[in-house]
Amino acid sequence: RDLQFAARCRSLASLGMTRSSEFPEKQVRDKFTVALVQMSCGPEPADNLAKALDRVSESARKGADVVCLPELFQTQYFCQREDAVLFDLAEPIPGATTEKLAAAARKNKVVLIASLFEKRAPGLYHNTAAIFDSDGALGGIYRKMHIPDDPLYYEKFYFTPGDLGFKAFDTSAGKLGTLVCWDQWYPEGARLTALQGASILFYPTAIGWHPAEKAEFGEAQHDAWRTIQRAHAIANGVYVGVVNRVGFETGDIRGNSVPGKGLEFWGGSFFCDPFGRVLAEASHDKEEILLGEVDLHHLEDVRRNWPFLRDRRIDSYAPITSRMLDGK
Amino acid sequence: RDLQFAARCRSLASLGMTRSSEFPEKQVRDKFTVALVQMSCGPEPADNLAKALDRVSESARKGADVVCLPELFQTQYFCQREDAVLFDLAEPIPGATTEKLAAAARKNKVVLIASLFEKRAPGLYHNTAAIFDSDGALGGIYRKMHIPDDPLYYEKFYFTPGDLGFKAFDTSAGKLGTLVCWDQWYPEGARLTALQGASILFYPTAIGWHPAEKAEFGEAQHDAWRTIQRAHAIANGVYVGVVNRVGFETGDIRGNSVPGKGLEFWGGSFFCDPFGRVLAEASHDKEEILLGEVDLHHLEDVRRNWPFLRDRRIDSYAPITSRMLDGK
Repeated sequence: RDLQFAARCRSLASLGMTRSSEFPEKQVRDKFTVALVQMSCGPEPADNLAKALDRVSESARKGADVVCLPELFQTQYFCQREDAVLFDLAEPIPGATTEKLAAAARKNKVVLIASLFEKRAPGLYHNTAAIFDSDGALGGIYRKMHIPDDPLYYEKFYFTPGDLGFKAFDTSAGKLGTLVCWDQWYPEGARLTALQGASILFYPTAIGWHPAEKAEFGEAQHDAWRTIQRAHAIANGVYVGVVNRVGFETGDIRGNSVPGKGLEFWGGSFFCDPFGRVLAEASHDKEEILLGEVDLHHLEDVRRNWPFLRDRRIDSYAPITSRMLDGK
Repeated sequence: RDLQFAARCRSLASLGMTRSSEFPEKQVRDKFTVALVQMSCGPEPADNLAKALDRVSESARKGADVVCLPELFQTQYFCQREDAVLFDLAEPIPGATTEKLAAAARKNKVVLIASLFEKRAPGLYHNTAAIFDSDGALGGIYRKMHIPDDPLYYEKFYFTPGDLGFKAFDTSAGKLGTLVCWDQWYPEGARLTALQGASILFYPTAIGWHPAEKAEFGEAQHDAWRTIQRAHAIANGVYVGVVNRVGFETGDIRGNSVPGKGLEFWGGSFFCDPFGRVLAEASHDKEEILLGEVDLHHLEDVRRNWPFLRDRRIDSYAPITSRMLDGK
């Protein structure tokens, strides 16, 4: 139950924990820095992409090895309404945008996690995170598995649920996992990504307050969101990096906007350690680049002292694939 | 995302949510009160049992419909050492102690959750929660599934891991779930119990600080413990009631004590709603009876507005029965 024993940590590198000797082509450092880009999004997609690419460069200048952008950062959150014309925003992967993202990753020598509206086929679209390695290679994609649908968050209209399962990606910074937004409420997604060896789970996100509800429920909503993601860190002994957008939006896409009260995206991006301790946290209302250090020695130390993975009852978890355990 | 719509809640009872019309023999109220008994334990088991039974009566007088006692409340936490003579503390279920507990449940007309050191056969022991209905009937048992083993928490020596799986029990207060202590770190256990229809998960617990670590890590340890259990409430849309013991202990069983610095059990029992809001919380150092109200209208309301159960990807969770997803 003691979280840190400096003495025994010192020898971990020599035990090969970082696997640098096994996989020289993917030299994994014991420590690396992640940048979480909390940004606002305007009506012009090209402007948002340009801003995001600038922030990637800025993150690299600040020392980031891995950069994560918010969910669907190229546009205001368009799912405030159901409008078939907005499928025009979707793009193939790889495509024109991924070429620019890949170039930014390569130029800045960072691993880059970018959330995209993927056009897979006519009439088949996904909410997809693309992972670029620091040489610019597209390391893989994750298609959002859990799709929400609530007033002003009409995502089931736009996004087909992912069919690739939960994924961790091998990068120059080691195994990284990404999920997307609504996935953050599901312990199963965090577990299945962490079990693939991810040292950190990223959650690019677009979540905000209904202005009419904020006074009464806003604090509880934000706290629940923060709590459950910290709990994924604790349950799995991994770092967690959550990246939200910020600002008031009417879903304005080049002037095509939604009547109504809009959404106030609550920012609050944060970085926490494998024991759920929040080490860096952004404001509710400003653009920020949040930096955090992933320390594989610390991760190992936390897991040794609270060895949750050791005692999982894998012989008894199979019914978790049931909708309800009600005998129906 | 609005947590409460008073207007639409009012009609839930007529929709049969509480099932009182379907199951007249188990008349389930829309609301019921739970009592979490945070207590200290002395060297004499009979005294601890007598104290616990008094607290059950006191809880009933205060209006409790369901009472939960802490883990292994009949003794100081004896697992601070491995000593085969301590298996003498174990007792069969049903047995002399369950008779007294059943009588207390019947007399006070409360559902009672009591944690016991179960002797199942010579050489075969479990850490078991027994659930008594308000008529005194033994409704069932849950055998702790996840067994810890850490310095001064040598439970793997004493307790065979449970073989009954995760369970919710049908009682006069509706479906109730119980897990035990170390289970609290496992989202799978919470999920599998909640999916059986439990409105509340109880966690009888014995967790404390190593005195030498408390200053440096105590706050983070307590916060992680609190956070992950609040997250079970959020992920599953259930109430959670955590019942810990309190006080400094050397594992003293009738004078058979453990040399060393002992353990300081951190109390902090709490009750939270299906959105993880802590509605009642005990101190770190005092005996207390914590009361909380389970409101099935509120539970339904939370789940309607954050419908996490709707979107679970049950087609993709099967690998959760793997130890690691490392291809080995």
